[in-house]
Amino acid sequence: MELSQRITNITGGGSDGWDVFLKARAMIAAGTPVIELTIGEHDIRTDPEILNAMHRSALAGHTGYAMVPGTDELRDQVAKRIEDRTGVATERENILITPGGQAALFAAHMAICDAGDDAAFIDPYYATYPGTIRGAGARPRRIVTSPQNGFQPTVDELAVGTAGARSLLVNTPNNPTGAVYSAETLGAIADVSKDNDLWLISDEVYDTQVWDGRHVSPRSLTGMKERTLVIGSMSKSHAMTGSRIGWICAPAPVISHLITLATHTTYGVAGFIQDAAAFALSQGPEVEEQVAAPFRRRRALAMEALAAQNVVRAIPADGAMYVMLDIRATGMSGDAFADALLEQEHIAVMPGESFGRAAAGHLRVAMTVDDDTFVDALSRLIAFAKRLA
Amino acid sequence: MELSQRITNITGGGSDGWDVFLKARAMIAAGTPVIELTIGEHDIRTDPEILNAMHRSALAGHTGYAMVPGTDELRDQVAKRIEDRTGVATERENILITPGGQAALFAAHMAICDAGDDAAFIDPYYATYPGTIRGAGARPRRIVTSPQNGFQPTVDELAVGTAGARSLLVNTPNNPTGAVYSAETLGAIADVSKDNDLWLISDEVYDTQVWDGRHVSPRSLTGMKERTLVIGSMSKSHAMTGSRIGWICAPAPVISHLITLATHTTYGVAGFIQDAAAFALSQGPEVEEQVAAPFRRRRALAMEALAAQNVVRAIPADGAMYVMLDIRATGMSGDAFADALLEQEHIAVMPGESFGRAAAGHLRVAMTVDDDTFVDALSRLIAFAKRLA
Repeated sequence: MELSQRITNITGGGSDGWDVFLKARAMIAAGTPVIELTIGEHDIRTDPEILNAMHRSALAGHTGYAMVPGTDELRDQVAKRIEDRTGVATERENILITPGGQAALFAAHMAICDAGDDAAFIDPYYATYPGTIRGAGARPRRIVTSPQNGFQPTVDELAVGTAGARSLLVNTPNNPTGAVYSAETLGAIADVSKDNDLWLISDEVYDTQVWDGRHVSPRSLTGMKERTLVIGSMSKSHAMTGSRIGWICAPAPVISHLITLATHTTYGVAGFIQDAAAFALSQGPEVEEQVAAPFRRRRALAMEALAAQNVVRAIPADGAMYVMLDIRATGMSGDAFADALLEQEHIAVMPGESFGRAAAGHLRVAMTVDDDTFVDALSRLIAFAKRLA
Repeated sequence: MELSQRITNITGGGSDGWDVFLKARAMIAAGTPVIELTIGEHDIRTDPEILNAMHRSALAGHTGYAMVPGTDELRDQVAKRIEDRTGVATERENILITPGGQAALFAAHMAICDAGDDAAFIDPYYATYPGTIRGAGARPRRIVTSPQNGFQPTVDELAVGTAGARSLLVNTPNNPTGAVYSAETLGAIADVSKDNDLWLISDEVYDTQVWDGRHVSPRSLTGMKERTLVIGSMSKSHAMTGSRIGWICAPAPVISHLITLATHTTYGVAGFIQDAAAFALSQGPEVEEQVAAPFRRRRALAMEALAAQNVVRAIPADGAMYVMLDIRATGMSGDAFADALLEQEHIAVMPGESFGRAAAGHLRVAMTVDDDTFVDALSRLIAFAKRLA
């Protein structure tokens, strides 16, 4: 009894990148305290006011099937948020509500790629990207960036990497690197998308976490809204990771097909969760700034801690809830360093290798514990690296 | 800018079957009262006690990422429910929690079928089945049953219909027909699954709605648990349609791959919804009987109303929240009848044609309004048919 090649090959025969995370969870379960700086999960919970809005909606009877594309109210609010933030005219018909950003990423690739098509993405990458592409039956094609370029893809890397591909997946602010793509990089992405007739899938779930400057959506560049699918989510902006609610913003005919796909893959999103999300968005951008504030603060603390030495370097830490640390001066791989750090210091960070070739010899450190614990963990990590170097 | 063939072909170029439903919704929105007997949605809402359990969980902090396979507690409870109801040993490792039964149906086909594989299903069928199979890249192959056999597939139909296929999808109690498969039919399904080396996907979301006898899961038949993926859901059994929570029960190695798929397609299910489901299941089978009771009652009322005449006949109405009515004596198609009934009587029912070839000349009537309204609608439907016959 064999399963499909597609499902048995989702991880490409390799690890899914979560080994350190799972090892840390097992240590915690066995009673060993571990400082967890692995996954992108806030150290706060979802605001009780949002949860109360959810409960009001549920008690009021919004417990039956919601319309598959999403409620009119939430689709309108998401459209307005995108229009307000990017200046691009956006209507309800441009929005599909999805059960989370990951579901949106998968649906976007399902909509664009047939079996065997090439789907490009930027390395380092969020751990699920290649598996998501394989799950949609397409072939992941990685564009390997360089630490010396701050992990931003160059014109040449993009041109070679996407020739013949159907789609290009980009993510700014970037997980895992913390890069925020420059105007030059975004221009190169727009140009190559048009030159190579690509669909651009733009994962913007960290759009509220930019520490210098502001987030620019590639959909707002000339000629791009016709060929861009934007992935959004309430997870990072509103600390609603567990609510599993996100969206795709795309040209209306694309959304129309994505609604048909949703009818056959999810049959929509819980109405009371949509009402909670609508409530959260109605609170305006101040709430989003509050949720982002601890990461802004800890990023400054990290820069301070790192400034005093040269063994561990941060690249580039301009956005998102992570700092990417270059530990190549220790002579160790990210995998080996992360494993040793967990064993000896009981600090869990993600090895760069979990996120692709470009991030080898690096660590992704999630800034997701309170400031004191974060500073303590970082100084112990630096001391550990110094002893090795 | 073209989209994938897969997504543009999900409905096979035809209607998705929801025309009457959407027309009824539009009439209601425009202020015309319509008795809606279209979708499988209870006329009650989710029990507030279940919603309170959800709120307690959310306020207690279960708002972060839940483990992708589902919480240990809910997986254990689902396993126990299946073991209690079927007698087949079932462990946590046999269960994946999914965001609804539809997501489970899609994931099951993704796990089994590669692009171009044949996936069989029984006609009449729930409206999403062929699109779900196409969405997974496979080719839907319908096994057309006969009204005179109560829409149960025969040995020959199954043998011919599944030769060379990878999978067979069955649904008992059946939507749209109300059929509950006999021991003979289930035996034939098990035999053909083994003879043709098929994976069996058994959609059992109506397992609490059997009006005579009891539900038998084909997974409980000899040699079947190794090759059966059972689809379950809280939607129908607990009036939790809008909560989008279901499961797949399958051999542990299959679940292991399905967890990897879930990591890349949904990233799990909201923890507070899982806790609500666990609370609901902890209330035991009495709650499930209470939720099913109105349909049992209305089914008896329908039999009574239909007994007095010969123009409209029910086939077979042994389970699920629908009665399938044969209106061929009127000389009209189900499509034309349903359309005329909506226009002239403001009663919305689903034409049999929405559910495949076998149900042409039939109507699916959901028993999802209060008893008096239901009896009134049914007597008007019968009177309407008599005038046409």
